[in-house]
Amino acid sequence: MSDWYAMRGVSASKDEVKRAVQHLPQGLFPDAFCKVVPDFSDPDYCLLSHADGAGTKPVLAYLQWRETGDARVWAGIVQDALAMNLDDMACAGCFGPFVVSSVVSRNRRLVGGDALERLIAAGAEQAELLRSMGFELVLAGGETADMGDVVRTLDVSFTLTARMPRNAVLSCRPTPGDVIVGLASDGRAVYENRENSGIGCNGLTGARHDLLSDDYRLLYPETFDPGLPSDVVYKGRYRMSDPLPGSSLTVGEALLAPTRYFLPVVARILRDLRPNALIHSTGGGQTKCLSFLKKGRIVKDWDAVKVPAIFSEIQRTMPTDWRDMFRTYNMGVRLEVYVRPDDVGKVHAAAAEFGIRAYEIGRVEASGAGLTIRFQGQEYTY
Amino acid sequence: MSDWYAMRGVSASKDEVKRAVQHLPQGLFPDAFCKVVPDFSDPDYCLLSHADGAGTKPVLAYLQWRETGDARVWAGIVQDALAMNLDDMACAGCFGPFVVSSVVSRNRRLVGGDALERLIAAGAEQAELLRSMGFELVLAGGETADMGDVVRTLDVSFTLTARMPRNAVLSCRPTPGDVIVGLASDGRAVYENRENSGIGCNGLTGARHDLLSDDYRLLYPETFDPGLPSDVVYKGRYRMSDPLPGSSLTVGEALLAPTRYFLPVVARILRDLRPNALIHSTGGGQTKCLSFLKKGRIVKDWDAVKVPAIFSEIQRTMPTDWRDMFRTYNMGVRLEVYVRPDDVGKVHAAAAEFGIRAYEIGRVEASGAGLTIRFQGQEYTY
Repeated sequence: MSDWYAMRGVSASKDEVKRAVQHLPQGLFPDAFCKVVPDFSDPDYCLLSHADGAGTKPVLAYLQWRETGDARVWAGIVQDALAMNLDDMACAGCFGPFVVSSVVSRNRRLVGGDALERLIAAGAEQAELLRSMGFELVLAGGETADMGDVVRTLDVSFTLTARMPRNAVLSCRPTPGDVIVGLASDGRAVYENRENSGIGCNGLTGARHDLLSDDYRLLYPETFDPGLPSDVVYKGRYRMSDPLPGSSLTVGEALLAPTRYFLPVVARILRDLRPNALIHSTGGGQTKCLSFLKKGRIVKDWDAVKVPAIFSEIQRTMPTDWRDMFRTYNMGVRLEVYVRPDDVGKVHAAAAEFGIRAYEIGRVEASGAGLTIRFQGQEYTY
Repeated sequence: MSDWYAMRGVSASKDEVKRAVQHLPQGLFPDAFCKVVPDFSDPDYCLLSHADGAGTKPVLAYLQWRETGDARVWAGIVQDALAMNLDDMACAGCFGPFVVSSVVSRNRRLVGGDALERLIAAGAEQAELLRSMGFELVLAGGETADMGDVVRTLDVSFTLTARMPRNAVLSCRPTPGDVIVGLASDGRAVYENRENSGIGCNGLTGARHDLLSDDYRLLYPETFDPGLPSDVVYKGRYRMSDPLPGSSLTVGEALLAPTRYFLPVVARILRDLRPNALIHSTGGGQTKCLSFLKKGRIVKDWDAVKVPAIFSEIQRTMPTDWRDMFRTYNMGVRLEVYVRPDDVGKVHAAAAEFGIRAYEIGRVEASGAGLTIRFQGQEYTY
């Protein structure tokens, strides 16, 4: 699947991006999960200004909206783009208040003013939900650009800026002896109003083309790069409204499940302990941890995890190597907590408070290097 | 041309955007040029977090790069996206330090890693240039997304966040009796290393399709929305390398001239006086001032202005009503300074220090309402 991935013009490993940014200053805390820069005025404080977007998930929202007329899809991608920022920042120990700025670029011919109104209203609704859980978002405005010559359908991103004491910034240092507790990306947290497929907001270009049928190529040519080889585009068997096997959701609902916020759980965990690392497993899926591993080897045992139906179905449909699945998708765990063995119970207890499953997914070993994932009698090394 | 404009899926008046945001809170200073929100910690301070991008200018950069192989084009659009933010913020009285976060979305199949490296290096170069003039930019990182299913070629935007004392925030209140001094968008400022066409970063979808020839439709179908009516796409007579009549620049160079920073001039002006309004004439061109006019009428006399060759040529090629030209393009003046008559000389002197032409382009009259622009014996009202 690595080749399919490259042929679709995406890169799980972001090799070119890493090369382009390798000479940039790394900020005040090079081993924090996010870049941290000095505060404007107080040497004891620092700032995070963090940008991320919903990636290609707006394409799925567009497809669902075209197929069903359901304008609620736009609210979901606002949650996606916010969660991608908030959970990265939480891994650095940052819990706001957050000043939020948005960039929405659309093809006005295809995505109308009603969608814009939904997107903007959703920002305020999400801020309200988060405020009710103790996190403040200040909406500072943003840019909305109509440019169909650049954007095929819709692109949504946010930049969140926050200030925090320097001594509260968390290092992200997986340490030999650590147990890795993984927080489930699927199920239903107490602050969610419906079942979550667990897909989050990564790997969605692949998931869309692998699951959805060729019908979409003809119906919605605006949803893919016409320069792609035709054999990588919409090669699955499903329509958005088909039931996803092993799930109560349709394929469309599963692909569009809004990315869970882990922010409240992370804040709760930090009341009781200070983990050696918190890793938000986004781009690179379960291999994201390699960016932060300085010594030793990470071993994960994925038989401990209930792999969500969406991932099993993507794997079966292509079929895709599990090896590639693990480096593309979160595979059921989007937040890893690296703790000493004595603290494992506290992480489980915190997750349980929010109705989120937690798994002991592995440990950091002193000898060796890299990452090994064991699953169904196989070992995958990275 | 209004219809052409709408048919191309853009909107100078941004009516749908304005409708979508009309119920949002306006921040601490509703009559400031930018939205201002409370500071995290100090009630005497406030924050601006401002997002803007290079719009469709990256499409022009892509065309020039494909035609000439000149990778320097990528640096120009970084300046464009920064200037669009900085000059808006300067109009609110904000001069940094600025924390800068970027979002780059690209079609990896068409825009390679070398372009990414140029874009990222250009951010550091522009920060250095601005620092040399006394303005600090702290580069906080950003997101680079490969998503050809969303972005045809390239999209570049920045979010700039800054903190300032509340009592330094400028109101933007055009006041009867004010003289409007306009700062030229073209020519060559002392801090620029080449002639600037004055086009800036607005109206470029129209400018590109009106000036460039049908050849580009066949050569680079990735540079426009294939759903557009074919008679609005690339209907001009020029190749990028053709000389622009009345100018020392080629058409490509003129379209790609990086947006001038007015930040240094505005900071200089504010040392001597506090204008009633500073208006960065971006979306809406010379009608942007209407968003800030509460009473009286603005009258502009455009015969006082040397209209840059790029605008004359766009007007002649279509041909386009001057009425529409004024509400799409800056027409030679991108920054308006509203002052009492006694202060006009000080604005001229400040502009002259930077090698920038300044014009008395009009005044605010107590009677009447709206905007009148006089040009070549005609009156255009808005």
